[in-house]
Amino acid sequence: MEVLKNRILKDGVVLGDNILKVDSFINHQMDIKLLNQIGKEFKERFKNIEITKILTIEASGIGIACIAAQYFDVPVVFAKKHEGINMDKDNYESEAFSFTKKKNYKIKVSKKYLSAEDKVLIIDDFLANGNASLALIDILNQAKSEIAGVGIVIEKGFQPGRKLVEDKGVKVESLAILESISNGKIIFK
Amino acid sequence: MEVLKNRILKDGVVLGDNILKVDSFINHQMDIKLLNQIGKEFKERFKNIEITKILTIEASGIGIACIAAQYFDVPVVFAKKHEGINMDKDNYESEAFSFTKKKNYKIKVSKKYLSAEDKVLIIDDFLANGNASLALIDILNQAKSEIAGVGIVIEKGFQPGRKLVEDKGVKVESLAILESISNGKIIFK
Repeated sequence: MEVLKNRILKDGVVLGDNILKVDSFINHQMDIKLLNQIGKEFKERFKNIEITKILTIEASGIGIACIAAQYFDVPVVFAKKHEGINMDKDNYESEAFSFTKKKNYKIKVSKKYLSAEDKVLIIDDFLANGNASLALIDILNQAKSEIAGVGIVIEKGFQPGRKLVEDKGVKVESLAILESISNGKIIFK
Repeated sequence: MEVLKNRILKDGVVLGDNILKVDSFINHQMDIKLLNQIGKEFKERFKNIEITKILTIEASGIGIACIAAQYFDVPVVFAKKHEGINMDKDNYESEAFSFTKKKNYKIKVSKKYLSAEDKVLIIDDFLANGNASLALIDILNQAKSEIAGVGIVIEKGFQPGRKLVEDKGVKVESLAILESISNGKIIFK
């Protein structure tokens, strides 16, 4: 997706060898016009697949998923990392490792909002080692939902996330795939 | 906002005397059509005020803010409660007490994304004791941004949040105001 790649080249910031910061337009400040272009592109990539719900994970995935959902005309469910007193007690649960927070965390989705009738598209901002996507796939398997695929804004093509997700038999569509971000230089696949 | 009130009556669940769960359509599963109606209504309520940015707080505010931002044609910034390794070190910070998590937490916004040039609308799902709104107002004051107002989906009219925010000289617009939710019965103001 050219407009996204150009924006990453213009406003993305490489920290060290593995971290690409896109917090000026994707995951702290959000450019809603760009998110709309991203949402349209996800619809194009998954246009022939029936989808009844979008699943994402808090926090950075939520804005992307909500804007994209308008093109699919479906509700969004987000997996919770942080439980409040008003969270349901009857949840699907899985565990993931956070690359940016350097620790394991549990994710939960109320059993009310995923079922065997759902055909679910997973949407997230990044795919790197696949931790979040695999945990969401685990939750969808527990719910016996059909998995329509995984839609990713930025994939770190030099990390194994895609292979791990595809090994589960799940289709991955990434809008920008990084070949490398070594030495402060962003190279797309 | 009638469509919102009717939806709360239909799908809201009262727990105890103070908790209204709206997680089937607002803050766990999100009805994107309803969020669009909410976004349009926020635009209507703030139509004569210049706004350059929407500020919200993770996680439940993000979807509402992103959909609403389409009607204002502005970017969204969300305050972070949970810091990752790639978070900027130069942030505005404030502290809030979480009613649903029963503890204090810090919120942070990178100094890059709020300035004295910004005219900011705060958007959040709930206003109760005003903790989150007051912390966001504190951050906007640190940034010397102009505060255009606070837009709330559901206000607990029996708690002091509105008064505390208005005492700061900030306009509050709530789309549904609860008079009480005692004995499992939802009564609007």
